Amino acid sequence: MTAPGRFITLEGGEGVGKTTNMAWLCGWLEARGVEVERTREPGGTPRAEAIRELLLDPDFDEPLASDAELLLMFAARAQHLEQRIRPTLARGAWVVCDRFTDATFAYQGGGRGLDSKRIALLETFVQGELTPDLTILLDAPVETAQARVTSRLKAKGGQRDRFEQERQAFFRRVREAYLSRARAEPERFLVIDASAPLEQVQRALESGLETRLACL
Amino acid sequence: MTAPGRFITLEGGEGVGKTTNMAWLCGWLEARGVEVERTREPGGTPRAEAIRELLLDPDFDEPLASDAELLLMFAARAQHLEQRIRPTLARGAWVVCDRFTDATFAYQGGGRGLDSKRIALLETFVQGELTPDLTILLDAPVETAQARVTSRLKAKGGQRDRFEQERQAFFRRVREAYLSRARAEPERFLVIDASAPLEQVQRALESGLETRLACL
Repeated sequence: MTAPGRFITLEGGEGVGKTTNMAWLCGWLEARGVEVERTREPGGTPRAEAIRELLLDPDFDEPLASDAELLLMFAARAQHLEQRIRPTLARGAWVVCDRFTDATFAYQGGGRGLDSKRIALLETFVQGELTPDLTILLDAPVETAQARVTSRLKAKGGQRDRFEQERQAFFRRVREAYLSRARAEPERFLVIDASAPLEQVQRALESGLETRLACL
Repeated sequence: MTAPGRFITLEGGEGVGKTTNMAWLCGWLEARGVEVERTREPGGTPRAEAIRELLLDPDFDEPLASDAELLLMFAARAQHLEQRIRPTLARGAWVVCDRFTDATFAYQGGGRGLDSKRIALLETFVQGELTPDLTILLDAPVETAQARVTSRLKAKGGQRDRFEQERQAFFRRVREAYLSRARAEPERFLVIDASAPLEQVQRALESGLETRLACL
């Protein structure tokens, strides 16, 4: 029987360098002979990506009810788990996922103020016993992260999506919720100071990974 | 303060005459001076209708995970409740809804075999204390109902959607789940024999409504 793969999630607010460090992390694992399946939430399968589009679409005339947002998020997660994450882990490959349930607690819970008990109820409903083996939290002060997002958007001439239009206070609550989860589960979380220069961030990541993966 | 409106749902499998009798019911209520808001599930608001499209779309290459199906159904319901049903009832109008949570118990529970305790958990999560004041169940043997669906589809030259492609055994389980819910809550359900000729169905509906509405 193949040993199951490991489930690693990457978390953090906008502008903390998630995309860059995701690529670095997958490359680092692959260089060590690990078969890596890279994915993201909400999304990761065709149906889950279609749900993601509904969640991020800023063009509806009606507000999205907070319960509907939460249920859509977990519907996408249920699909992703059944169609991709669980089968990948079962065949022994590792899953590296850009955001997972910690993001729901941070954004919908911390950011939008939804009762975290209701989020936890859906977490149990959808995941059962499954939780990430390791969660990397890229953490930076909101001002630093938001300055990066603003300059990136200007360079692209792009429009902000529904979540990116939210205020700084919202991102402060998101950051605090992430840090609070990391404090509650220090054995699962690896918190990296993402306000440092990229090279330093990746050295911290590498050193953290070497310690943590030895225990996985 | 305005007295809240009443919440009436219309239930039944494919081919029981739901569309025809829905129109008749709304007309009958309006003739009695009731302001009626006619709606349907899944759907009833722009965002909830977009979720409905995801649920019914037969064009995805991947199967829809049963938990994802259930969570999408309740996401659409949460949106419909917050954006339309609750505000309509609050201003004193009546809501007549083509399918509601009983359909989830019948289709996903009875039909697909999902644990009804899991459905009940999401029902409580989304609805709290809200349940329909009256549920009309149009009931007919599966053979009768399916014969109607087949001739309707032939007339339209239409393609069956994902749910309509299911087998007769599925619809037998759906019917049994509906009848079992009606037996468990006789004070909420009005069961109508929908295999009778239309005129007779509507006489039965009228007589049932006169009795039930006197008590609402």
